[in-house]
This record gives sequence, C-alpha cells and structure tokens, in this order.
Amino acid sequence: MALYLIERNREGARRISECLDTALERVGQCERCRNFSDQPQCSICASSKRNQRLLCVVETPADVLAIESAGSFDGRYFVLMGRLSPLDGIGPEQLGLDRLSEQLEQETVDEIILATNPTMEGEITARYIADLAAARGIATSRIAHGVPLGGELEFVDSGTLSQAFSGRQTFK
Amino acid sequence: MALYLIERNREGARRISECLDTALERVGQCERCRNFSDQPQCSICASSKRNQRLLCVVETPADVLAIESAGSFDGRYFVLMGRLSPLDGIGPEQLGLDRLSEQLEQETVDEIILATNPTMEGEITARYIADLAAARGIATSRIAHGVPLGGELEFVDSGTLSQAFSGRQTFK
Repeated sequence: MALYLIERNREGARRISECLDTALERVGQCERCRNFSDQPQCSICASSKRNQRLLCVVETPADVLAIESAGSFDGRYFVLMGRLSPLDGIGPEQLGLDRLSEQLEQETVDEIILATNPTMEGEITARYIADLAAARGIATSRIAHGVPLGGELEFVDSGTLSQAFSGRQTFK
Repeated sequence: MALYLIERNREGARRISECLDTALERVGQCERCRNFSDQPQCSICASSKRNQRLLCVVETPADVLAIESAGSFDGRYFVLMGRLSPLDGIGPEQLGLDRLSEQLEQETVDEIILATNPTMEGEITARYIADLAAARGIATSRIAHGVPLGGELEFVDSGTLSQAFSGRQTFK
C-alpha cells in the first residue's frame, strides 16, 4: 500500500496523512466508557435515549461497532481496550477496572452483560469482572455461546457444540 | 478423482466399488431413530448406557456424528434425514414425524432437545416438532445460538450477535 501511494497516488497519501494527524489530535477516550471519542463523553454515554443502568463490558471499540450495528442493545458500554493477560503485563489497572469499580459504586447499574470474547483470556476477564460486580450485589450475565445463525451443526467445533447443549433453553 | 482412479489406481477403484456395494447391501435405517445402521436398531438406540428418556432431534446422520464427537450428550437421537421444505415436497411424512409421534405416545420422554440447524427451515422444523411435543405435555428445549467458542465478537454477524444478547444467561 505504501509503495502504491508513493508511486501513483501522492495526493491520496497526503490526504491520509492529514486525516491521521487530525485523528491523533482530536480523538481521545471517553472519560466514562473508555471508548474512542472526540468529546470528553462519547455519544452513547451522553445519550438520554440509552438505558444507563444496563452496562455491557466489551474488549475493544470494534466490538462496540459490531454490537451497535446488530442494533439489539440499548444500554451503555465499558470498553476494556484489551483483556486480562498477566504474561503480557496486562492487569486490572491497564483495563481500567479501577475506574469501572468506581462507577459501580457511584452509579446505579441493574445488570452487567459480560460480552468479552469466548476465548480463554476473555473468560478469565469476565470472571474477574463478575467477582467485582458480585461484591456490590450487581447481577451479571454472559452473552450466549453456541451455534451461529445460518450455521450447520456438522461444521461447528466440539467445544461450541458442548456449550450449545449445556446452554440450551426452553423452546418458546 | 474418477480420472485419477482409472489412470493410476485401478486396484483402489475396485476396493471403493466393493465397499460401496457392501454398504448399499448392509446399511439400512435404524427402525427407532432413522439413523443409518447395519442392524435393525442402531448402537445408540440399543445401548443401555444412554438416557433413553432424553431425545435429541437432528437433521442428518452427520449431525449425530458431530454431537457424538463433542461427547457431551448421553441421550438418544431422532434423525429427520432432512428438514421441512414444502417447496421441495418435503413434509412431515418424509421426515418420519408420524413415527416420532408414535414414539412419543408409546415411550416415556422427559425432554426433547431440538438440534435442527439455525436456518430458516431448521427453525420451522423445530417449531413443528415443539408443537407435537406440547400436545403431549413434553418439555422441549433448543440448543443455544450465539458466538462460537474462540470467536471474536467483531467478526460475528449481526443476527448471531442479537441472539447472543437476547439469549444471555446469568453468569455463574
């Protein structure tokens, strides 16, 4: 991409450089949810249309975009910007969990939805946050793990199939 | 594959032909669960180690293999050998649902797990069987739909994410 830009599209390269500069200057983190934002509070945290008592914890800003485009969640987020990974030097502080604790003390939260990825680190992170919440008597839930829509059982891995069976729900 | 066999591996072709012949002759359907079997009853239906009161309904024999290799289910199966699809001329009879009805009358079943694929036809088939079961007061459950293990929220489609949120469960 770099070679293409320098060889054939120097004007485009200049525009990319300017956009990056502007982004670097203006985009910081929302002081409440830690998502990227060009305001002190992001549009979701500042919105009166969102249920501020329903908190969804995700790993990255990309997860927020994915959930928003699914359009089925109307609460607010807390973005960890990573996951617990002691070997890489990422502990609770790096994920802003001290700030999350403060928020749970100061604000009323009815339910925390743990939407970290269903990987080993994601599960450990979810467990850690569930313990934080339990200490304050706040209900926690985990997004469902199972067969993705449109998928065929035949092509799903064993672990996911096991989860789909153990997490089965009454058919309504 | 045909060209390779004829050109280079005529002995292999003969063995494949013999195996297919034997399979055609010997493999029929289990009279109870409709899965492929070389006995009147397949090994799962005949096993005393399986919970015969827990019934899992799947679309194909491949699904049975997938669930068995996951190893987290100890009940028995009913194999539809397809899914409801009126446009293709596949109705309840083609899926052996009359036989399933008879079984539900004659045997004691505590729970039916609907493990049809999470596709449109699979959901309609699940609904149809749930109605059959409800008429006989048998509990039905559906395998969980959601984010597959090891997956990243970012790369999961919107429909699955919505299901993962609506199907969230209390974190234990």
